[in-house]
Amino acid sequence: MWTFNDFPSGVVKQEYGADITPGWLDRVRQATVRLSNCTASFVSSTGLMLTNQHCVAACLDQHSGGGRSLLDDGFLARSRGAELSCGAQLADVLLETRNITEQVRAAGRGLSEQAASEARKQTLSRLEQACEQDRARTRTGAPLKCETVALYDGGQYWLYRYRRYTDVRLVFAPERDIAAFGGDPDNFRFPRWSLDFALLRAYQANGKPAQTPDYFEINPAGPDAGQLVFVSGHPGATERMLTVSELETLRDVDLPGWLLRAAELRGRYIQFGKSSREAQRMVEAPLESLENAIKVHRVELEALLDETLLRRKRQEEAALRTRIAADPALARSVGDPWATIAKAQQVERALSLPYTFLEEGAGFNSRLFNYARLLVRAAKERTKPSVQRLREYGDPALPRLEQQLGAALPVHPELEKLTLSFSLERMRERLGADEPLVRTLLAHDTPDSLATRLIEGSKLADPAVRLQLWNGGAEAVARSEDPMIDLARRVDPAAREIRKRYEAEVEAPVSGAEQKIGQARFRLLGTSVPPDATFTLRLNFGTVQGWRENGEQIEPFTHLRRLFERDTGEEPFRVPPSWLAAKDALDPDSKFDLSTNNDIVGGNSGSPLIAADGRLVGLVFDGNLHSIASSFEFDPQLDRAVAVHPAIMLEALRTVYNATELLKELGWQ
Amino acid sequence: MWTFNDFPSGVVKQEYGADITPGWLDRVRQATVRLSNCTASFVSSTGLMLTNQHCVAACLDQHSGGGRSLLDDGFLARSRGAELSCGAQLADVLLETRNITEQVRAAGRGLSEQAASEARKQTLSRLEQACEQDRARTRTGAPLKCETVALYDGGQYWLYRYRRYTDVRLVFAPERDIAAFGGDPDNFRFPRWSLDFALLRAYQANGKPAQTPDYFEINPAGPDAGQLVFVSGHPGATERMLTVSELETLRDVDLPGWLLRAAELRGRYIQFGKSSREAQRMVEAPLESLENAIKVHRVELEALLDETLLRRKRQEEAALRTRIAADPALARSVGDPWATIAKAQQVERALSLPYTFLEEGAGFNSRLFNYARLLVRAAKERTKPSVQRLREYGDPALPRLEQQLGAALPVHPELEKLTLSFSLERMRERLGADEPLVRTLLAHDTPDSLATRLIEGSKLADPAVRLQLWNGGAEAVARSEDPMIDLARRVDPAAREIRKRYEAEVEAPVSGAEQKIGQARFRLLGTSVPPDATFTLRLNFGTVQGWRENGEQIEPFTHLRRLFERDTGEEPFRVPPSWLAAKDALDPDSKFDLSTNNDIVGGNSGSPLIAADGRLVGLVFDGNLHSIASSFEFDPQLDRAVAVHPAIMLEALRTVYNATELLKELGWQ
Repeated sequence: MWTFNDFPSGVVKQEYGADITPGWLDRVRQATVRLSNCTASFVSSTGLMLTNQHCVAACLDQHSGGGRSLLDDGFLARSRGAELSCGAQLADVLLETRNITEQVRAAGRGLSEQAASEARKQTLSRLEQACEQDRARTRTGAPLKCETVALYDGGQYWLYRYRRYTDVRLVFAPERDIAAFGGDPDNFRFPRWSLDFALLRAYQANGKPAQTPDYFEINPAGPDAGQLVFVSGHPGATERMLTVSELETLRDVDLPGWLLRAAELRGRYIQFGKSSREAQRMVEAPLESLENAIKVHRVELEALLDETLLRRKRQEEAALRTRIAADPALARSVGDPWATIAKAQQVERALSLPYTFLEEGAGFNSRLFNYARLLVRAAKERTKPSVQRLREYGDPALPRLEQQLGAALPVHPELEKLTLSFSLERMRERLGADEPLVRTLLAHDTPDSLATRLIEGSKLADPAVRLQLWNGGAEAVARSEDPMIDLARRVDPAAREIRKRYEAEVEAPVSGAEQKIGQARFRLLGTSVPPDATFTLRLNFGTVQGWRENGEQIEPFTHLRRLFERDTGEEPFRVPPSWLAAKDALDPDSKFDLSTNNDIVGGNSGSPLIAADGRLVGLVFDGNLHSIASSFEFDPQLDRAVAVHPAIMLEALRTVYNATELLKELGWQ
Repeated sequence: MWTFNDFPSGVVKQEYGADITPGWLDRVRQATVRLSNCTASFVSSTGLMLTNQHCVAACLDQHSGGGRSLLDDGFLARSRGAELSCGAQLADVLLETRNITEQVRAAGRGLSEQAASEARKQTLSRLEQACEQDRARTRTGAPLKCETVALYDGGQYWLYRYRRYTDVRLVFAPERDIAAFGGDPDNFRFPRWSLDFALLRAYQANGKPAQTPDYFEINPAGPDAGQLVFVSGHPGATERMLTVSELETLRDVDLPGWLLRAAELRGRYIQFGKSSREAQRMVEAPLESLENAIKVHRVELEALLDETLLRRKRQEEAALRTRIAADPALARSVGDPWATIAKAQQVERALSLPYTFLEEGAGFNSRLFNYARLLVRAAKERTKPSVQRLREYGDPALPRLEQQLGAALPVHPELEKLTLSFSLERMRERLGADEPLVRTLLAHDTPDSLATRLIEGSKLADPAVRLQLWNGGAEAVARSEDPMIDLARRVDPAAREIRKRYEAEVEAPVSGAEQKIGQARFRLLGTSVPPDATFTLRLNFGTVQGWRENGEQIEPFTHLRRLFERDTGEEPFRVPPSWLAAKDALDPDSKFDLSTNNDIVGGNSGSPLIAADGRLVGLVFDGNLHSIASSFEFDPQLDRAVAVHPAIMLEALRTVYNATELLKELGWQ
């Protein structure tokens, strides 16, 4: 997960004989797009963007309703005018990066630790603001977005300048049955047959399509097995720098606790969904995201339970400590941050249950409760100076909070009762019926009866009511008789108390110690290893590869023929009618999905897979099961990225969807 | 968990000054009763037995129906004639134990390993049969039951002779709301307020109450804090001799996999139960047992994830290996069973998923499927000589199998669909949609549609249909068009294949190696440590003790007052009307439950807590959360047994239930 600034072109040249020039890097950078939580890439000079269907689900949903579901049915704009605006979707293109480490360091020099941290923060804000005001530098006059980025736990600071497109429109998406063929059972599996692709278009402020001379030509032939391929995108977050004691806390406490709760909630959702067609629709989205998270965390737990991973981590940790010890000055300045972290882990374990249930909301799983807590806390926090508030209520955050409160998101009372009753019941089980808050809340109630009364009695599903309380401030919130506001008021003292302890005794020492380790590591290793993922632009290289599983070789390509063989006629293995109708016209030997050993992680969804010749040869949408554990450590033997093959995209647009105009724009006709 | 033969009376004398004489031990042994899966004890000379309410649930259920639920309402026989027969309940009293180690050893001497094992088995059967024919030796002519017992993994063999009562009747049980006050949230918790007691009576073959001169007098004052107390009973099974590699398999594979499935099933049950009052009743029993198992396995997993337990186990293992190595002859005969077991663990891990889903039934969670598999397998197995069959289909097992098939247990189709669909769905997720059997079964189905077709189409809910197939043998089963029989036929080849591998590559080497370790340990340590629990009679000593939790001292007694304070009016914290009505007449300071540091485990439920003076001072019904981990290792600092205090039993019988005759029989009036 290399940054474009420190990409090891020399290694690529040496190992594969490919020339990755600065010009190649610039073109790839400018053709790669950051969406809200995915990656996309330009595939025409007029702003057409390729990404995953699952990355545009919110836009499809936005245009559904009244019996029509674009998620189910797919969408094709047969003309520019028919393209559908994707409300909240942004598209950012990284224009420039500037190393500001020296400026940030200088700001804190000679000051106390606390004052230095404050001075650094101010410097970062100042640099961001100055950068954004510099509008003149974009050719199109599109708004600029500037963000500072800390790499290597503060070993480096950078200023990233993006061109931001705020007008993004939906051009094409296939039906969900083919985009997500295989559903949860196939999620993170390979061999795979998912057509997880969609097309968007970026528009300029003047309503004209963006001019994007740097775009990827798509090569429908795709790559060969073993061929060198690159992934350019925005890996979200990795945890490869966690210490062994932190990994052990994840393994022993966080992951098992989360998984047990999530598995039960999954069961409740599924059973609820069987009660009616409407219930089925209600749980669809939350169940899908829950099942994805369960798979991720289950495999993470399995990886941590496999002693080989932790053994390697122990060895790495010991090796780094040995290198630090060999430099007495460094050793003195670093101290023993591992011991600090290990000690804090003991506190984290002890606080885990009350912190998770009371403060992190595992005891109050409800949208209405979240609104209520936000209102109750904001009312109190806004009476203080910004810097003294809980961090999520600082002045810069307030507009977004107000926007959240005002947004008319659907609230399903039956689902709210389900999740709230479930979480109250588990809180009572894990904290005990005699825990003071539990005892008070359930003094004359079952979890069910309390949840029912709260959800049926609360008016917070109405954005107007929420905004009234927001605008009314502390007084309005104190006077409110809304039962959910009342619950949030009652929970708040205990929740704040445990949070205070958690921040003071876990977060603060851990984050300070992590920075010390990160900076020492950076001092010793520099940019010879890539920094942890931060949802900023990265590039990596790999090859088209299957892998060996239980002594069997998994081939890196799948073919269309097998899709039809796997059709059960029932979700999630149902080939949609459009494909059944086109079956005879389709080439059964067409390649469908492929696997590569590129190092990817969530956020890379929608990333272009690029050949050394600069052409796009695949669209990353998933990884194999093993790749989930790459959060902790990338294993090139087993971890695989999974991509849609360009051949099947061409087949789909041409033979199934007859998308003539798009084919022309993509140079395919 | 000492046997009565090797009870360390000397230690008790030295530490507590108490004289535990052979006479005392004989009296306690003859006053202790083994029920089907619990313990009881005689509390009058006319066969009255004290045990837990949860141990008599099957009998209460048997007499419920038609709108009347003895589980909910409780029961009191106001005369002998009103006592209710508990159909399947047996009551065994241990009369005599005989060490037969030499005879068993001699049988195998000079033979090959296989022939020796066969000769030992035959000797054990012969000794059991000879013992049972010796009826003359019971005074009452009651049937005798003889069982051989292997202690110390075959370090010792014993012959245990029981007097068996087959006519057991229900005398008293309180309402479930008070017997199980606190339900699942309070299960394995202390402080606690559960009146988990019931009374049964043993009858002789002539229909007269059993004569039981050896019985416990109950001391309503109970024990003092710190007082020496004994638990006599039948601890079911402990796993204290597992090797570290076996514990790691439990931690890494078995427990997490089971817990994730169980948690989801719990969620499905709970949500299903909310759909109607009838559904609620249907899931009650399976949900209760599932929740109990979830708590047990969750705490076991937590214990194994806590590095301190495994560290001690590693040290113990190393110490034993050092002692073995110090004796060259022993070392030669023992070899390296730890390596054998560790190697087999690798196979176990690799086979775990298919073995669990295909053979152990995690993929086919359905009573009807279990019947179908039993019929399909029995039909095939019964064509072979007994010794060549799968072990559960040997000749001695056939009568029980036939009885199972003929028993009219309720089958709830809606619940069957739920569990079968759930298990098929998880099997598809974990084995993959392309696993050959999964693919065939779900070629044109969802887990729901397949489960529905199978459950609605099968006639196996009818005992007559099952017995017809049983009696019809292989031909009838082969001809059957019952869809569940068809499923069992289709699953069987793959299931048998994986079982065969599992038995050959995991079970056989592990069990052989465990015996080697057990025998070596016994050679070195003899009876200075107690053997693992085997649901045979054991006695241990401890004291009335609370413990420290998070820096706070938990007191060893609870009092009635707090029961009423914890009343929410809602299940499972609902004090029943009988107690609310009697509230003013009850002494709020009456002791209710108590905790001791005796070493107990499932099977000890219903065990008498006995003072050194031979009087009963409590009724064991549970342990604290920590005690769950005593499956692996008993920790006297934290593990606590939880018992009903005799004072509250007296208060209940006198003030709430006005059980005049019983009070007289117990010497309380």
